[in-house]
Amino acid sequence: MEEHKNKIAALDKRAINAARARQDMLTKPAGSLGTLEDICIQVAGITGNAMPKMNDKVIITMAADHGVTDDGVSAYPKAVTAQMVYNFLNGGAAINVLAKHVGARVVIVDMGVAVDFSDERLEAKKIGYGTANMAKGPAMSYEDAVRSVEAGIEIFESEAKKGIDIVGIGDMGIGNTTSSSAIVAVITGYDVVKVTGRGTGIDDAGLEKKIAVIEEAIRVNKPNNKDAIDVLAKVGGFEIGGMAGVILAAASHRVPVVIDGFISGAAALVAYGIAPAVKDYMIAAHRSVERGHAVTLDYIGLKPLLDLDMRLGEGTGAALGINIVDAACKILGEMATFEDACVSEKN
Amino acid sequence: MEEHKNKIAALDKRAINAARARQDMLTKPAGSLGTLEDICIQVAGITGNAMPKMNDKVIITMAADHGVTDDGVSAYPKAVTAQMVYNFLNGGAAINVLAKHVGARVVIVDMGVAVDFSDERLEAKKIGYGTANMAKGPAMSYEDAVRSVEAGIEIFESEAKKGIDIVGIGDMGIGNTTSSSAIVAVITGYDVVKVTGRGTGIDDAGLEKKIAVIEEAIRVNKPNNKDAIDVLAKVGGFEIGGMAGVILAAASHRVPVVIDGFISGAAALVAYGIAPAVKDYMIAAHRSVERGHAVTLDYIGLKPLLDLDMRLGEGTGAALGINIVDAACKILGEMATFEDACVSEKN
Repeated sequence: MEEHKNKIAALDKRAINAARARQDMLTKPAGSLGTLEDICIQVAGITGNAMPKMNDKVIITMAADHGVTDDGVSAYPKAVTAQMVYNFLNGGAAINVLAKHVGARVVIVDMGVAVDFSDERLEAKKIGYGTANMAKGPAMSYEDAVRSVEAGIEIFESEAKKGIDIVGIGDMGIGNTTSSSAIVAVITGYDVVKVTGRGTGIDDAGLEKKIAVIEEAIRVNKPNNKDAIDVLAKVGGFEIGGMAGVILAAASHRVPVVIDGFISGAAALVAYGIAPAVKDYMIAAHRSVERGHAVTLDYIGLKPLLDLDMRLGEGTGAALGINIVDAACKILGEMATFEDACVSEKN
Repeated sequence: MEEHKNKIAALDKRAINAARARQDMLTKPAGSLGTLEDICIQVAGITGNAMPKMNDKVIITMAADHGVTDDGVSAYPKAVTAQMVYNFLNGGAAINVLAKHVGARVVIVDMGVAVDFSDERLEAKKIGYGTANMAKGPAMSYEDAVRSVEAGIEIFESEAKKGIDIVGIGDMGIGNTTSSSAIVAVITGYDVVKVTGRGTGIDDAGLEKKIAVIEEAIRVNKPNNKDAIDVLAKVGGFEIGGMAGVILAAASHRVPVVIDGFISGAAALVAYGIAPAVKDYMIAAHRSVERGHAVTLDYIGLKPLLDLDMRLGEGTGAALGINIVDAACKILGEMATFEDACVSEKN
């Protein structure tokens, strides 16, 4: 982890300036493609390439279980985590459909689901059979928190060998909005009630119970908000640590990393806590409906590309975000300049 | 025009109900894909198909000149309209790049550019060599306004023979934000100053002049806001009429039509004025930076999918919007149900 953390450099100013200069030569009024222009200039800075191409697109979806589901914080039974892993592997989930739509490959990782799998299509990085119930003590040990981040780094490293121009992160884990709300409350300092939503769809009574469980978890564990690994260990999840690792590794490899929704946002907070320099390497795909996501992005200073009232996770928002980044980079690489096309410039 | 207008029916409720029922069987919490779910349900209602497929995607980009450019309302010389038509034909413009990105074919139409073209790749529907200066009298005759709408209908009909599952509209015409602001002011009743923006990028003095020119055009012509064709004739443009025709034809063929930015929005207002039933067949791709676009969408009752600070036109926003609609329909058609995937449902 330390090695990757130390490798994260500033954005490449030369590539940024070259990309910006080219934007202004393209056959359109300067600035008229708005966020598309900003995004491809950022990606130029990230990659160090003034005309970056997003050919190899990867979405890494990490699954794990959460002991806190014992306290009835979710609308779905815990067994759904493992069932959805099989659905991912068989290509039937939303992330499969959207990843195919945007031309991305999906990598499914078992970071700590509560059952044994024996399926070669699954990346096995199990840290444990689900976390412990954070309402009664730490979700995991400090060592396991570090291991989860390092497992995420390993996954990225192994995918990087196959080629990665852009990576999106996503999650699956019944109970993980509960864990994420706890992380967001501790790190941003917002009240639990302000950053806790309905997850997969609990009712008012369920929401009240969920808030009480999170408050109890914070009271019992006293996570140190100056130490992101401590927060991850006490109220986090294995998939959240894994996604934080992917973010750190992507930034150290100068690869843009697209953040999905609320759980990915919590992972982004952990990665940002470990290495604030990751910020410039992250692109927020969308603003989730889940309460607390907007606060999370604001805290880091990320502006979401999309706002489509989504709250599914899995990397679904990241897939659509990757598609926008891809479009932005194609604009820079494929459009004609005023000179190429013999078009008159502004009066 | 009358025939197409009379053919526009209500959305298909059976297809809507079937699509909604299927949405709730897919392996995700109900409603968790937000706008994607709403959009594909709307497209089911439009097409009458409970599992619509967006295979044939078409963007129709219509170009014309505007006599009002004589009054110096644009940051670019009038010659740019024709130059950009060649850029479209040669594949160098933003719309070419984005249409290719989303798998759409682009149809370029000369609705009334001020020069002669002889290029077989261009659809020739020239109503005139640019409109007359609306600040001095009607931009075109009532008959030419009708002809421009009918030309748009003809273009759609001819493309429909090749196959169209979804159509986006776009524009090119130096001076056409001036015309569009006039249309929007007249039809919505907003003050000219509230719906007039900087177009391709004029400065403060230019904006003041542009507002004065629009106010003068409305004073001189007294367009009848109860007659959309009269408004189109007096302060409109040939490409705006053409796009209104595409909207009418698409709705009459039960094909979803994706509205681009401000100029397309003015065309949507004209089409909505001619036949209010088109509303349910339209999907607003994005909210443009151009002042007056949000007001236009609100007036019709359309909610934009994207907000990426774009203001280019050409159909660029429509291309990205089409991509979102395509993704939404794939979710409905390709995801596994809880039963297919043996995933437990909500507690």
